[in-house]
Amino acid sequence: MLSRLSPRLFSSSPRLLSSSIRTLVNVTYPSPSVAVLELDRPPVNSLSLEMATSITSHIKQIESDPQIRSLILTSSNPKIFSAGLDITEMSRPSKTRLSTFWRSIQSLFLTLYSTRLSTISCITGHSPAGGCLLSMSCDYRVMSRNPKLGIGLNETRLGIAAPFWLKDLFVKTVGYREAELGLSRGKLYSPEEALKIGLVDEIVEGEVYDVAVERAEEYAKIPEKGIVATKRMCRGELVRDLEGKIEEDVGWFTDFILEEGTQKGIEGYLKSLSKK
Amino acid sequence: MLSRLSPRLFSSSPRLLSSSIRTLVNVTYPSPSVAVLELDRPPVNSLSLEMATSITSHIKQIESDPQIRSLILTSSNPKIFSAGLDITEMSRPSKTRLSTFWRSIQSLFLTLYSTRLSTISCITGHSPAGGCLLSMSCDYRVMSRNPKLGIGLNETRLGIAAPFWLKDLFVKTVGYREAELGLSRGKLYSPEEALKIGLVDEIVEGEVYDVAVERAEEYAKIPEKGIVATKRMCRGELVRDLEGKIEEDVGWFTDFILEEGTQKGIEGYLKSLSKK
Amino acid sequence: MLSRLSPRLFSSSPRLLSSSIRTLVNVTYPSPSVAVLELDRPPVNSLSLEMATSITSHIKQIESDPQIRSLILTSSNPKIFSAGLDITEMSRPSKTRLSTFWRSIQSLFLTLYSTRLSTISCITGHSPAGGCLLSMSCDYRVMSRNPKLGIGLNETRLGIAAPFWLKDLFVKTVGYREAELGLSRGKLYSPEEALKIGLVDEIVEGEVYDVAVERAEEYAKIPEKGIVATKRMCRGELVRDLEGKIEEDVGWFTDFILEEGTQKGIEGYLKSLSKK
Repeated sequence: MLSRLSPRLFSSSPRLLSSSIRTLVNVTYPSPSVAVLELDRPPVNSLSLEMATSITSHIKQIESDPQIRSLILTSSNPKIFSAGLDITEMSRPSKTRLSTFWRSIQSLFLTLYSTRLSTISCITGHSPAGGCLLSMSCDYRVMSRNPKLGIGLNETRLGIAAPFWLKDLFVKTVGYREAELGLSRGKLYSPEEALKIGLVDEIVEGEVYDVAVERAEEYAKIPEKGIVATKRMCRGELVRDLEGKIEEDVGWFTDFILEEGTQKGIEGYLKSLSKK
Repeated sequence: MLSRLSPRLFSSSPRLLSSSIRTLVNVTYPSPSVAVLELDRPPVNSLSLEMATSITSHIKQIESDPQIRSLILTSSNPKIFSAGLDITEMSRPSKTRLSTFWRSIQSLFLTLYSTRLSTISCITGHSPAGGCLLSMSCDYRVMSRNPKLGIGLNETRLGIAAPFWLKDLFVKTVGYREAELGLSRGKLYSPEEALKIGLVDEIVEGEVYDVAVERAEEYAKIPEKGIVATKRMCRGELVRDLEGKIEEDVGWFTDFILEEGTQKGIEGYLKSLSKK
Repeated sequence: MLSRLSPRLFSSSPRLLSSSIRTLVNVTYPSPSVAVLELDRPPVNSLSLEMATSITSHIKQIESDPQIRSLILTSSNPKIFSAGLDITEMSRPSKTRLSTFWRSIQSLFLTLYSTRLSTISCITGHSPAGGCLLSMSCDYRVMSRNPKLGIGLNETRLGIAAPFWLKDLFVKTVGYREAELGLSRGKLYSPEEALKIGLVDEIVEGEVYDVAVERAEEYAKIPEKGIVATKRMCRGELVRDLEGKIEEDVGWFTDFILEEGTQKGIEGYLKSLSKK
């Protein structure tokens, strides 16, 4: 059926869930229909296997409560939304761990992107690569006006490439041409630039969080039946594309990362970080 | 053949055509190559089965005259282009009538969207939902600058959703991201906003109709062979998508509308109208 | 494999290469990682079979040198980048020559669009139709700010239509709606207009060439592995679309051009040129 997401999406059970990993995120409820999921993996909310799995399972828990209509995604670190994939997962990994890691990223994306909840990302800090992926998977993006911040897909700067579905998500968000340009050059956009190309929907001088809650409540007032059917119709194509290529995409990612050239690039990048 | 529309499109015979329904629209000819089709179903040009069928059959009649190159679509009511689908068609209907109604809407879209004529919508009044569909199916949109007017797809506000092909048409017109945003929130855009996102091509302070005629004559001067081949190439994909899913789309629409939740929403909406 | 271009693309051998045709372009090297390919077929760099074949074979030669990372495409005529297809190839041609000609245009597009090199078009002069195709096939476009210049796809003005893949390339560059509008009306955009819709990336008051070299060097500094994988991912879809329809597209083009109506239109156009 064209306009329906696969039911598997909403029924798959979270893996690796344990009490220890629950501490990587905090969930609060500013109003009866709105939940807030705060990323809380110091120092930079990087997405390890455990972090990705924890976010996914918490989203599923929140969406199982029929009272909740909107979800705000934010960070406990006001300076960094998320630095993206945990690069230590990609440095000389075993193929098994790397595959499991990538599946957890795919699953996080599919869960966040296709949840029945209206999702608002509240971006007060840097949001490169995987941080930008999380933001773009939401329905609405509010960002601090702070001109020092950057958001975008800078994978090429590390000598790697975004997967096809992240490229497609970027194309859907900013249009093909800007996506090609931004991906090739690994560009991080300032909040003003991001607003101009539609990478974020609103930039805020003062309290970003307050605006995010306001938007979340606006979404929660729209009749659920129509907005959920609309979201499924809009997002179904990309969800089905990735669901049909899960293994192909795992193969692409692991092959790419395990190549010696990529490993050398990652090594160089880690060394440059440790010198800072 | 990739670049050709199915010939069925141009050969299917109009149904339910009778002299009585011809009065729902008026056709005039401001110049030898331009026809004007004026929607004339008071009070708000809502699209009933009979209205949709009448518009379709008149477009086919006009396009059968080889002298006519351009078609202007306008309204006899200066305050409302069209209020969209006639909601009484969707309130506790028989499944048979509802299916026939939806087929008439599909057929109207396919006929208007893929006609060999260059089509200009002349929008002096409100143009929500089905009114926006009619406008977007044209090749060019001229709208009054009047800031009180609204154009957009506000289906979610009624608890319903646009069909996939209307979503696709909206995506093609304003880009994916703006379409997702506008559809989810059921947003009606002011003429200024509509111009900014490309939902209309031109906004006019004075006589919208005069500008529409001017544009119609400009289109009529472009050599027919190239412009028709170009239109077929651009619009063929969406036409084929819907033609391949006519029955699936009828099933989706009738199932969605006949669900008790949707019916309750429509009832509430009709009550709120009758109180005005 | 989704993210890989067919290897055929990079291994097919150039046809008709001889010393005489090499003079249609000039190749220079402003820096160790940058090559410049200057179109040099007076008076207007129109794309004949020999010209297209020569450009293709020179791109392949340049990309076979692993030191070269970026390629600038420019013109020996400061007033005209390229006037597009050589219209004499389309005037009363034999079907065999016309087919071979069209294959050379397809091959030029596929080679330029999918080269591992980062490509910058340096546009100081007019760039209609096939000139716009060459520009859009590059990764980045720098144009002179000169308001008298025009760039766009004006095929309908000649009574012909762009092929599906050129339409798709235009859609990817400026978005569907602007592409449909520009194709239908055969619009040539001024540099300011082209910048606004994203048809060029930068307009320059002074030395366009110096800016092109600067951009070429910036691209050459991005790690090759990631940027090439990204380019393949972004451009693979359109490449595969055309590769799967080479013969269908040759059939469409030759049928369209050889129709009597098209020939009469081309005759009229050539007469109007000779009167100038």
